[in-house]
Amino acid sequence: MTSAEDLADRVREGELRIHELEEHVDHDTAAAARRLLVERETGADLETIGDYAFPAERAEPNVENMIGAAQVPLGVVGPVAVSGGAADGEHYLPLATTEGALLASVNRGLSVIDAAGGADARVTKTGMTRAPVFRVDGVVEAAETVEWVGENVDALAEAAESTTSHGELLGVEPYVVGDAVYLRFAYDTKDAMGMNMATIATGEACSVVERETPASLVALSGNLCSDKKPAAVNAVEGRGRSVTADVVIPGEIVEKRLHTTPEAIAEANTRKNLIGSAKAGSLGFNAHAANVVGAAFLATGQDEAQVVEGANAITTMDVRDSDDPSDLYASISLASLEVGTVGGGTKLPTQAEALEILGVRGGGDPPGSNADALAEIVAVGALAGELSLLAALASRHLASAHEDLGR
Amino acid sequence: MTSAEDLADRVREGELRIHELEEHVDHDTAAAARRLLVERETGADLETIGDYAFPAERAEPNVENMIGAAQVPLGVVGPVAVSGGAADGEHYLPLATTEGALLASVNRGLSVIDAAGGADARVTKTGMTRAPVFRVDGVVEAAETVEWVGENVDALAEAAESTTSHGELLGVEPYVVGDAVYLRFAYDTKDAMGMNMATIATGEACSVVERETPASLVALSGNLCSDKKPAAVNAVEGRGRSVTADVVIPGEIVEKRLHTTPEAIAEANTRKNLIGSAKAGSLGFNAHAANVVGAAFLATGQDEAQVVEGANAITTMDVRDSDDPSDLYASISLASLEVGTVGGGTKLPTQAEALEILGVRGGGDPPGSNADALAEIVAVGALAGELSLLAALASRHLASAHEDLGR
Amino acid sequence: MTSAEDLADRVREGELRIHELEEHVDHDTAAAARRLLVERETGADLETIGDYAFPAERAEPNVENMIGAAQVPLGVVGPVAVSGGAADGEHYLPLATTEGALLASVNRGLSVIDAAGGADARVTKTGMTRAPVFRVDGVVEAAETVEWVGENVDALAEAAESTTSHGELLGVEPYVVGDAVYLRFAYDTKDAMGMNMATIATGEACSVVERETPASLVALSGNLCSDKKPAAVNAVEGRGRSVTADVVIPGEIVEKRLHTTPEAIAEANTRKNLIGSAKAGSLGFNAHAANVVGAAFLATGQDEAQVVEGANAITTMDVRDSDDPSDLYASISLASLEVGTVGGGTKLPTQAEALEILGVRGGGDPPGSNADALAEIVAVGALAGELSLLAALASRHLASAHEDLGR
Amino acid sequence: MTSAEDLADRVREGELRIHELEEHVDHDTAAAARRLLVERETGADLETIGDYAFPAERAEPNVENMIGAAQVPLGVVGPVAVSGGAADGEHYLPLATTEGALLASVNRGLSVIDAAGGADARVTKTGMTRAPVFRVDGVVEAAETVEWVGENVDALAEAAESTTSHGELLGVEPYVVGDAVYLRFAYDTKDAMGMNMATIATGEACSVVERETPASLVALSGNLCSDKKPAAVNAVEGRGRSVTADVVIPGEIVEKRLHTTPEAIAEANTRKNLIGSAKAGSLGFNAHAANVVGAAFLATGQDEAQVVEGANAITTMDVRDSDDPSDLYASISLASLEVGTVGGGTKLPTQAEALEILGVRGGGDPPGSNADALAEIVAVGALAGELSLLAALASRHLASAHEDLGR
Repeated sequence: MTSAEDLADRVREGELRIHELEEHVDHDTAAAARRLLVERETGADLETIGDYAFPAERAEPNVENMIGAAQVPLGVVGPVAVSGGAADGEHYLPLATTEGALLASVNRGLSVIDAAGGADARVTKTGMTRAPVFRVDGVVEAAETVEWVGENVDALAEAAESTTSHGELLGVEPYVVGDAVYLRFAYDTKDAMGMNMATIATGEACSVVERETPASLVALSGNLCSDKKPAAVNAVEGRGRSVTADVVIPGEIVEKRLHTTPEAIAEANTRKNLIGSAKAGSLGFNAHAANVVGAAFLATGQDEAQVVEGANAITTMDVRDSDDPSDLYASISLASLEVGTVGGGTKLPTQAEALEILGVRGGGDPPGSNADALAEIVAVGALAGELSLLAALASRHLASAHEDLGR
Repeated sequence: MTSAEDLADRVREGELRIHELEEHVDHDTAAAARRLLVERETGADLETIGDYAFPAERAEPNVENMIGAAQVPLGVVGPVAVSGGAADGEHYLPLATTEGALLASVNRGLSVIDAAGGADARVTKTGMTRAPVFRVDGVVEAAETVEWVGENVDALAEAAESTTSHGELLGVEPYVVGDAVYLRFAYDTKDAMGMNMATIATGEACSVVERETPASLVALSGNLCSDKKPAAVNAVEGRGRSVTADVVIPGEIVEKRLHTTPEAIAEANTRKNLIGSAKAGSLGFNAHAANVVGAAFLATGQDEAQVVEGANAITTMDVRDSDDPSDLYASISLASLEVGTVGGGTKLPTQAEALEILGVRGGGDPPGSNADALAEIVAVGALAGELSLLAALASRHLASAHEDLGR
Repeated sequence: MTSAEDLADRVREGELRIHELEEHVDHDTAAAARRLLVERETGADLETIGDYAFPAERAEPNVENMIGAAQVPLGVVGPVAVSGGAADGEHYLPLATTEGALLASVNRGLSVIDAAGGADARVTKTGMTRAPVFRVDGVVEAAETVEWVGENVDALAEAAESTTSHGELLGVEPYVVGDAVYLRFAYDTKDAMGMNMATIATGEACSVVERETPASLVALSGNLCSDKKPAAVNAVEGRGRSVTADVVIPGEIVEKRLHTTPEAIAEANTRKNLIGSAKAGSLGFNAHAANVVGAAFLATGQDEAQVVEGANAITTMDVRDSDDPSDLYASISLASLEVGTVGGGTKLPTQAEALEILGVRGGGDPPGSNADALAEIVAVGALAGELSLLAALASRHLASAHEDLGR
Repeated sequence: MTSAEDLADRVREGELRIHELEEHVDHDTAAAARRLLVERETGADLETIGDYAFPAERAEPNVENMIGAAQVPLGVVGPVAVSGGAADGEHYLPLATTEGALLASVNRGLSVIDAAGGADARVTKTGMTRAPVFRVDGVVEAAETVEWVGENVDALAEAAESTTSHGELLGVEPYVVGDAVYLRFAYDTKDAMGMNMATIATGEACSVVERETPASLVALSGNLCSDKKPAAVNAVEGRGRSVTADVVIPGEIVEKRLHTTPEAIAEANTRKNLIGSAKAGSLGFNAHAANVVGAAFLATGQDEAQVVEGANAITTMDVRDSDDPSDLYASISLASLEVGTVGGGTKLPTQAEALEILGVRGGGDPPGSNADALAEIVAVGALAGELSLLAALASRHLASAHEDLGR
């Protein structure tokens, strides 16, 4: 039986390559060998990284060259009542983060929302996209290709859907730039975030395009998808789920719980989230949606890099009714929240447990409803974060809050 | 001695609030009590979340309402030679992710870069920003405020720097929109990512502005900072570190290792990363920089939500020399990479170990050099990811790579 | 008979209002009276403004409070062969501008294109848009409205098309932000630029939306149209005509006529138009498309303010074939070129004459073909401008060209 | 004496080139010859184009291949009281346009502003920019170049200012992308719009950069300027003049003159100009600033293509005081209004007369004050346009206004 130490030696001596260890020993021993090697090479002590709480095999589809796990503090906020298109009832939201004060802040916001009777939420658009880029000879061929695509969406759907048991092609949008044609395929990927499903299905559809038109594939992703980049196409047209959460909070609750007024919160939102973001040339008109999206993604096994698109959110805060005190209408609309409850990192142990807390682990009934519910609950969490931070800003204690919480 | 079970009961009965448990018992018992409570309320089994590898007290500055930890698979890639302004020599890069194939892809890229003699890297601009928004009566007062600020930067620096032993005010940029004035303060925060340092220092400077001008503070952050939002101000002017990594790869290496040509990679980059991103209205002209930034951030205790700004990157790929085969010039320029080696999540156990792997844990000598080195190494990792993915796209096996690696 | 002098006196004394003069005298006398008034009030001499070449009545639908005309130098460039979807054959392009060297530059580009056999051009997408914004109670009603719209596009088309003899509703795209719903209506407006047709038709459709859903109209334009603003929605999705022109120029011609090489032009384009624009956070990846668009718009009676969207253009320049010398592939793709050959300023005398030069005055056969042809020819003009300026930059004589031409 | 007819024949027969005619005859005859030629070639009748009101020589610095002039209806709006940093007192604003209802609309807005006591206006930032792009070997040289520039701004200023009697270098901002360095030079160009001054001065400074650093000039404009493109760098940092105009309008005036309420106008502005523009991925958060900017530019001889940057404007509308009725605070902030009162098209006859109406023809005392005043008055005009259109939208008569005014 080969020991981790032996393996580390053999890698060091060039007999083995660092990514091949799993071919020779079990996954945990392979990880141990790599730790040893890295410890020797760098002088680091990797004890805690090696002290992970699951068999290394379970991480196999998610990582290569594993040496252990990053452990990120995880807490819960809530419960909060969510009245969604898919989500319903009281929910705790698990968040993993290193940002002190974040959970306290979101929790305060959720408690205010709950006191107001809970939040509404709806997924208003769905579609995971992949946009390959093709080379053509020039605009004459480009126009020909666009025309063919417009007339043959059914053929593309047939090819694309032949690769997946769940996904459905929703549409194909063509874009022409000189001698390049981009086709943005959008899919309903049900409870999967769906990036890979969309990639594979689109690959198949591309073969048809190449066979039937003069277009020649250059790259299966041509950045009009657009995955993990801050792009207007996502902020405008959506990607994954477009989801909105909102709530009307009675003025008394605003004053008692948030120590400010609807008017002050609305002013802070307008000057910061709307006008400040406008002046910044931003696609994100919110205070810190990415904080909640990022922490929820990390807890529930979503793709952390898709926090980028998750930040494409617009927060609105308006005074309603001119009674004294007025009420506050608060909303957040996330244009491109990419979530799934199957696939990706959702099967990993702590992540699966976090999805259990939310009651959305695995495929939903009907298909897609678990991912919809997850999107709606995350949106409510983000709304809570907005409310709480704007209230803090409005009452001027952001800096002191940071000082108190020792960040 | 109060047990977790007792505490959970008392929270359930409304005698205690869920965030107050640390006032009554040690942090691990408090976390256990919350787990119990959530398990009962939701039916979830939180065993793995509770099986974390460090005393809960250590997470106190980073999270509230802790129930345990999210565990994310962590691997290493490299080693790669980095010739930076601060980083030097061979480095392993730890990455934590749930995205299968990512480490394999980055590793392939790093191995190519290493074979080419390693990458150059430089931080070309530094500055953590915070931009409060003030209310004035109208443009007359706005102009007056802007003028005062222009003439009194020293007074603002004195106030701001009185709150920090390390930070230095680099400058203040004013922006006027109607009856709102935004002041974008930029700081050298040395080895800290510096968001909180900048916030606290700016808070102090704001008091001076309020005292000396007609401006009245509305919010300590007015979104021109811009933190965790996809904003042009960061992509254009930078935030945190602006860092570039590049390499010239001999044509033979491209062909042998990447199974394609410099010409094909350059074409894929132009059509996808440049023109495709242009058409998408993007601030990110890269293939998947956010993947590497996100995984490195997670491993090393950076703020995951700042992956948003980390995605503001431009990748260039050009053919150099018309010899046969030509060489490939490859670069990535990350406009707003916000990293630190002290503070935030960097003290957490697995995160501190990951920084040890990189040799950049804690404050650098001179101050700032550890964070600079981290930025440079992450940039080289991102460059490797770009190279590898573009080569894969160029040789058309993206879809099949995903299939093979089971994502 | 009232003289201009009398009228001017009466306005001065407050007996008449300055915009009411046409109720009392003919249009030319009214304009003369206003000139007199303004001359007296300001000391300006308005002789040339008053020396316009058409009866003032003809300007009535285009202006109020007329005092005369602005006269802008107008020249011609070309002829150039255009092989378009609608345009065909050799064309002179009339341009009105105050920018010295512009016509010389475009003319040089056109002569190079013509020497290469002329340019191809195609309109690849058409649709004039108007996007009203509605108020709803919250996301529940927003989702309900979006669903109704999705199921009742026919009813909306019927209402919209009842207001126009030519326009056709192409589709309606809904967007939700909190308690606001935006519906982006797109129309085929044939040979009209179509903004007013689209506005009126959408107004009618809005009545149906208000009647059938909970949504209440706030503004007939909600800025997702987006008219005369630099907006990604137009750059990505197009507005008016999306049109591309391209050409392959033999290397010999590049060298002889442009005194540089395809390689140098391609490099200048990549570093300036692609990467420079990327870094600038731009929606315009071109050198100076707006110059040609603006001058052609002014000459032919288009809406000058729509130059804003006309600048949403991507220029590509690539080396083709590795023969010595290589050829140059040059293209420009204008995402949102809003042109018409009927309505607006197209009936004014000098503008109608300019359309005659192009052979596209009035409605086309089939409908829409004149506006398509105009779009294609303008695109070729813009391509010529790009070629010429990039060549000048590549050969470094931009500054000296300006000096020589005395600008 | 050569007749126009003779010349036209000789061009047709290839003896003369169309742009060489001024070498043989006077400018008016040359223009006549071109008209003849174009009339014969195209069948167009160019009588009105030929009926221009000034000697063709006067247009020589502004156009080539002249055949005549485009005549655009020109009217006046106002007077309105402007209290600016440079402008003062009552002003008529000349506007040239083909957009029916525009002057009526702006006039209504100005009359409301005047009734409220006039508008305030201030130029809060000034700087015409030019940003050359340089090639370097890689980031090592890029960092070296950036460092040299930072330490040698004085040398660059000396070189740049040696080319101009008026311009002053305000600063140089470096940007690095891979092996490209962009230097954004900003100048105070006084009463000139200054693009050419900035280009020539920067050309000289580039020689110094090339001599002293490894950088090699690729293009004198690298699109980070950014001229005539819709770019965030201008919207964020400004270009030309950053100018704001604002006014507080008593509620009674809003109701009586605009037939709506401050609350309704503020709501329309928020939903349309702020949130709608946010959702559109826009750099223009206004209703139709480009209309007024474009018409004023055309009337006063500004560069029509710079309407593009002129559209980078943010409009705010807020309710002030909770009296009944409330007052309305209205502002517009144009980030990058590029205007001049000397040079360019300002010397042309009708344009010079229009500047006379405004009292800002030629150089100001102190230098720059005429262009500042022009910027301030245009801003007030744009504010009036915003007010009027938002009021119209708020009271729902946009469509019917268009119908009534026959557009």
